[in-house]
Amino acid sequence: MAKLKNDLFLRACKRLPVERTPIWIMRQAGRYLPEYRAVREKYDFLTMCKTPQVAAEVTIQPIDILGVDAAILFSDILVIPEAMGMYLEMHEGKGPVFNNPIRAESDFNNLIDFDPTDKLKYVLDAITITKKNLDNRVPLIGFSGSPWTLLCYMVEGKGSKDFALVKKMIYTQPDLAHKILDKLSDVIAKYLSAKIEYGCNAVQIFDTWGGILSQQDFLEFDLIYIQKIIQSIKRKDEPVIVFAKGVHHNIDKIVESGADVIGLDWTMNISEVRKNLSDKVALQGNLDPTVLFADELKIRTEVKRILESYGYGSGHIFNLGHGILPNVSPENAKTLVRIVKEESKIFHHRDTEAQRS
Amino acid sequence: MAKLKNDLFLRACKRLPVERTPIWIMRQAGRYLPEYRAVREKYDFLTMCKTPQVAAEVTIQPIDILGVDAAILFSDILVIPEAMGMYLEMHEGKGPVFNNPIRAESDFNNLIDFDPTDKLKYVLDAITITKKNLDNRVPLIGFSGSPWTLLCYMVEGKGSKDFALVKKMIYTQPDLAHKILDKLSDVIAKYLSAKIEYGCNAVQIFDTWGGILSQQDFLEFDLIYIQKIIQSIKRKDEPVIVFAKGVHHNIDKIVESGADVIGLDWTMNISEVRKNLSDKVALQGNLDPTVLFADELKIRTEVKRILESYGYGSGHIFNLGHGILPNVSPENAKTLVRIVKEESKIFHHRDTEAQRS
Repeated sequence: MAKLKNDLFLRACKRLPVERTPIWIMRQAGRYLPEYRAVREKYDFLTMCKTPQVAAEVTIQPIDILGVDAAILFSDILVIPEAMGMYLEMHEGKGPVFNNPIRAESDFNNLIDFDPTDKLKYVLDAITITKKNLDNRVPLIGFSGSPWTLLCYMVEGKGSKDFALVKKMIYTQPDLAHKILDKLSDVIAKYLSAKIEYGCNAVQIFDTWGGILSQQDFLEFDLIYIQKIIQSIKRKDEPVIVFAKGVHHNIDKIVESGADVIGLDWTMNISEVRKNLSDKVALQGNLDPTVLFADELKIRTEVKRILESYGYGSGHIFNLGHGILPNVSPENAKTLVRIVKEESKIFHHRDTEAQRS
Repeated sequence: MAKLKNDLFLRACKRLPVERTPIWIMRQAGRYLPEYRAVREKYDFLTMCKTPQVAAEVTIQPIDILGVDAAILFSDILVIPEAMGMYLEMHEGKGPVFNNPIRAESDFNNLIDFDPTDKLKYVLDAITITKKNLDNRVPLIGFSGSPWTLLCYMVEGKGSKDFALVKKMIYTQPDLAHKILDKLSDVIAKYLSAKIEYGCNAVQIFDTWGGILSQQDFLEFDLIYIQKIIQSIKRKDEPVIVFAKGVHHNIDKIVESGADVIGLDWTMNISEVRKNLSDKVALQGNLDPTVLFADELKIRTEVKRILESYGYGSGHIFNLGHGILPNVSPENAKTLVRIVKEESKIFHHRDTEAQRS
């Protein structure tokens, strides 16, 4: 495999010296970009996911437009339940809907066993095209939802304010919940292994709804399955990133799961987390996504604050604390990337010197 | 003033010995109760808030039905912006809507200065009736939203997923945000002082949206105003409870604001918080509201877990980690109250002995 022209992201994941802090943006291939919306006008969302040429095109857009240091394959976490036979509708602005949610043992029995390398081949083909067109400019990240986060959607059937139905399931049918979570873990491990085999340089597990669980429920119904996945993924030295939004209470336990990088939302103090974890893992984040509604001065202030908070040395991948919002101006996203590149150098000169010596 | 027949709640707020852990439930006067829905069928939500006899009636319902140890005056946090001249519509299920949200200096200038003892006299009259009809059975709690939480609604005009507009205001018009927050603080301090003067035995500040702010934005745009309110409230020994949902990062700072009781959502570890705060304040919470969808066995397990986690001695007020959900069965709410009463005694016998000696 040819050498990457820009491997800052991968080096930071491994806490190896870098010249500056790398940056990518969660949901960087998204609606805030007019170039994305132009493609989206021609296809519905799921068709975009399922058409490798189109998925590759929007995956590469932010590399060209923003100059971020990593690409993340355009897709959706719900392609897995869909491949299991759940009928998925995407309503832009309103979110995804499953009309046949999983509520009982019989619903679970209706889920189809599938081989991700077969039924989700369109994702792997998108990787092949993306890798070719990226031409080793930056690494490519593949992703999946966590089993718990997928379960939330599969049981609720749509987004929810209080997640009453999935909570009811873990409290009253814990065995059923564990069976589904276990099945999802197996599929996700195969899926992420295939993504790596097809060329992804890193994978991220999005645990969007981990934060709605209590401390002990998170361990029992969420983290144990993330751990199982990480232990099962076939990889050489491709890093695994775990982003569990809102899970302020179990960061140390997430580290024990084997993740190489922990994503932090914007309520976390990156300085304290780094100190508490003694640099055992790299950290990703943690700018409040709404800061991109502010002006350049405010964006710079916040970038500097986070860079200073993390401090000197490698092991930080700059990112937002959640996905970029659809009505952010692309100019402000560009500004963010430029400022991180400008302001982060001074936090790495010791690294570069260490590397030279 | 006559002596309360059950003052467990007030004693726990002051960390004085109790025979068992007191319990009340956030939003206990609410839609999950058929008795509440029967009243609600006759009046719209705001009419209920504004009709003292009706507000008093639904305030007392959970005392009779559930046997909780405190009443909380039925009202809504948005009566304050409404009294400032904002047109409020309540859509049950969909939430509140302001059709004239505050986005600019001119909107702020249109806000009316008002005296809560005049324009919100209906709230104070409801207190008078409630106190009379409660006949000193249990204490009465009065409440307000925090300035930040009210600002969120006033700027967004409704509930929001990402609170982009209010965030944009604090980032791009911080002076305007501070002006509104300061005005709200003054009004809220007067409002809570009047509630105490009219007979409330404690007050709670609901900071529902504190958790969407970063650690430093919470200090600058939220906590400073809560602190200002607490310092300005005219009270004898009526406790102030601060419940800042999702604010895991600044619990110690909330304590410094002068609160007597800190509310904890269900993602917090009550044992760790108690230890970290060295019993400087009482703690309220922290059962996951969705546990009330489970069966009695699970409810008992979770109640015992939280009681054990808090440990021996006074200073804990049992409650949910957020409001009770509208589709909970009233039987399960009754079960919760009964179980807390049954299971909490053993955590207090040392107290009672200390009291005797």
